Amino acid sequence: MTDTATEKHADLIASDRVEGTAVYNQAGERLGHISNFMVDKLSGQVRYAVLSFGGFLGMGHDHYPLPWSMLSYDIDKGGYVVDLAKETLENAPSHLPDERPDYNDAYGRSVFQYYGLLYPW
Amino acid sequence: MTDTATEKHADLIASDRVEGTAVYNQAGERLGHISNFMVDKLSGQVRYAVLSFGGFLGMGHDHYPLPWSMLSYDIDKGGYVVDLAKETLENAPSHLPDERPDYNDAYGRSVFQYYGLLYPW
Repeated sequence: MTDTATEKHADLIASDRVEGTAVYNQAGERLGHISNFMVDKLSGQVRYAVLSFGGFLGMGHDHYPLPWSMLSYDIDKGGYVVDLAKETLENAPSHLPDERPDYNDAYGRSVFQYYGLLYPW
Repeated sequence: MTDTATEKHADLIASDRVEGTAVYNQAGERLGHISNFMVDKLSGQVRYAVLSFGGFLGMGHDHYPLPWSMLSYDIDKGGYVVDLAKETLENAPSHLPDERPDYNDAYGRSVFQYYGLLYPW
């Protein structure tokens, strides 16, 4: 990930570089940053990028699991872009940073459903 | 990932918890720890778990990209297990922690080939 040329034919990103990367919506508002990935143990498929969003003066940020397919990278912005209004996010499935929800099928379905996506597993 | 029951029906792992997790071989030798993942940007597929291995007194560790399929998690050990002799690893494709190789197809093939695996892309 040293330059655009490398990115072009590699198309791989390092997890530890994504963590902390800013996330914007299509209106250009900065929603927060990526906290971490949730990865399927067996297949190695990233299911969610967890967005740290909200709070006040950096405190009380909640964590919002976003289906991976919702994110696209914007080279100019140097961050991810999702098609989400802040208001939509405010009512989305989320948890406190210290909590780790039970990512079972029911939870997964509720997340995908909230964003109008088909739960593919 | 708070307990085994959760793991059982969730089968998801958090990237920031895997980073730093110990890696052992089947002889029970501690080889090192996971430094990070390399993820396919478009599909969200984890292609490599990068192993930090070698060096002396914690210095000069090199980074070894391991195809994801090589790793399995051992609950008793609390770490990943790979079927690799230390000697095999010593000659494996690796890079300095500060360097980021160009993960193109030629590089990917050389890694998979080294471990006797078919390059699936």
